[in-house]
Amino acid sequence: MNTVNNTGEKSLVDNPGAYTLIDGKLISEQIKKEIAAEVESMIANGLKRPHLAVIIVGHDGGSESYVAGKVKDCADCGFTSTLIRFEDDVTEDVLLAEVDKFNRDEDVDGFIVQLPLPKHISEEKVIEAIDYRKDVDGFHPVNVGRMSIGLPCFVSATPSGIIELLRRYKIETEGKNCVVIGRSNIVGKPVATLMMQKGYPGDATVTVCHSRTKNLKELCLQADIIIAALGQPEFLKADMVKSGAVIIDVGTTRVPSTLTKSGFKLKGDVAFDEVAPKASFITPVPGGVGLMTRIALMKNTLLAAKKEIYSV
Amino acid sequence: MNTVNNTGEKSLVDNPGAYTLIDGKLISEQIKKEIAAEVESMIANGLKRPHLAVIIVGHDGGSESYVAGKVKDCADCGFTSTLIRFEDDVTEDVLLAEVDKFNRDEDVDGFIVQLPLPKHISEEKVIEAIDYRKDVDGFHPVNVGRMSIGLPCFVSATPSGIIELLRRYKIETEGKNCVVIGRSNIVGKPVATLMMQKGYPGDATVTVCHSRTKNLKELCLQADIIIAALGQPEFLKADMVKSGAVIIDVGTTRVPSTLTKSGFKLKGDVAFDEVAPKASFITPVPGGVGLMTRIALMKNTLLAAKKEIYSV
Repeated sequence: MNTVNNTGEKSLVDNPGAYTLIDGKLISEQIKKEIAAEVESMIANGLKRPHLAVIIVGHDGGSESYVAGKVKDCADCGFTSTLIRFEDDVTEDVLLAEVDKFNRDEDVDGFIVQLPLPKHISEEKVIEAIDYRKDVDGFHPVNVGRMSIGLPCFVSATPSGIIELLRRYKIETEGKNCVVIGRSNIVGKPVATLMMQKGYPGDATVTVCHSRTKNLKELCLQADIIIAALGQPEFLKADMVKSGAVIIDVGTTRVPSTLTKSGFKLKGDVAFDEVAPKASFITPVPGGVGLMTRIALMKNTLLAAKKEIYSV
Repeated sequence: MNTVNNTGEKSLVDNPGAYTLIDGKLISEQIKKEIAAEVESMIANGLKRPHLAVIIVGHDGGSESYVAGKVKDCADCGFTSTLIRFEDDVTEDVLLAEVDKFNRDEDVDGFIVQLPLPKHISEEKVIEAIDYRKDVDGFHPVNVGRMSIGLPCFVSATPSGIIELLRRYKIETEGKNCVVIGRSNIVGKPVATLMMQKGYPGDATVTVCHSRTKNLKELCLQADIIIAALGQPEFLKADMVKSGAVIIDVGTTRVPSTLTKSGFKLKGDVAFDEVAPKASFITPVPGGVGLMTRIALMKNTLLAAKKEIYSV
């Protein structure tokens, strides 16, 4: 492989393709075991099992499989889980009443309302109705705001999963140039905030790029760490990446496939085959950030049960 | 003046020093008049005057003069103002009781607790005790979080003032490279969020630099807009700025001076005399962002009185 290095740094030509695959499956299984062990020790100490409740509205295919995954993860971690299902035509008032019920239910440590919701229901209103102390999805403005300020809070799943991967692989972040592609409320903006905060993992110089960015390639070529979260399959190509960069792929676009039972497969935002040989570390899709996202919800539920973020 | 252009763009050599001074005094006077006119029309329509309350603890010199400025601004805008003063030894409980009183006082549209507070009082606790619907400083996590998500909220004073200056001077931001120097909770982080949000002023490609950034000069030289908010007098020099850049100076460090009655003068983070000739637009210190910061509080109080952010 004859990579051309754009930055004048030592080329990887001598050792082509010597990247480390960041194994989200391995790490998430490991964390799951850590959580399960902690739950068993809580039970042994006479405490109750952490309890996550999930509200799902309608039968969206993606939501169904995410929720099924969450219920399974609860079982694996030793949590109690409750699944409440409403049909598509549920009224906002009925949904808000259910939210209120979980807010007041002392046995429920945390709960989420699976998004998206049908158009006649305000997601904003529902999210803000959740007691922020039980908002294990980390979407309530109080949690978003506290994260921004650097106070203890429930961090939302994807940013939390990314940070945990960097931590477990001991990837250096201090003073590194980190380019985040995408400015969404659930990935781009929060992960940028976390990467720039004081301490490890953090202290990075963070650039947020998006659809209006004019010199994306140039910026990516300067990046030590690229977090691709724009939702365009195989957007990031080899010629946009400098040798030795750390590549975090947040994309999970479903594309049709005749090779899988489900009829689709997941594609990341990174052209893996060509980018990987230039990278020092890289996440695969599937098997990377996605699985970490699932485990982040379990971590938040455990924190809620232990009242580690909000003591009351 | 023989400026050397680092970016290959048209040099300013033909027209040295032809920058536009961003006049915070002029703009803030103009906005004050707009607000006063709106208040008079509210009164004419039988509505009550907007009412800002300010709580000050102790006798910190900076706080005293800020608070005096706020009371004067209220008078200029036609607002009612209430100033409550506590001594340094006030207990947290007494202060929280006062906060609670203002939360429940229907005549008070918005109020602030002047920071910093004495060490025995938790600023976090006091800020979170303020009803976010009256938090015209925009420091409550709900307002910080809503700003981050892009929902209507009280934006804190300095970021709000900077954005307003860009708007009034019709400075292009879309796709521009904006470097923010400093990652504080009250300036760096929120102004970065606003500059990257969708719409105008916004849609910029934003890089946040800070004490751990290794290649600050290089990044600044690529910037179309630099927002200097690190609090180091005359930190930003001419050789860190490309020709034609927009320079926003947030610094207001008090340095001793024998030339003023007060014994000090304000210094910005920008070496104005050498940077200005390379800039297209630049804010002076004093007379730039600082005055806009004052007016932002008045704008938030007006919004609170009109219940434009939170209707209940």
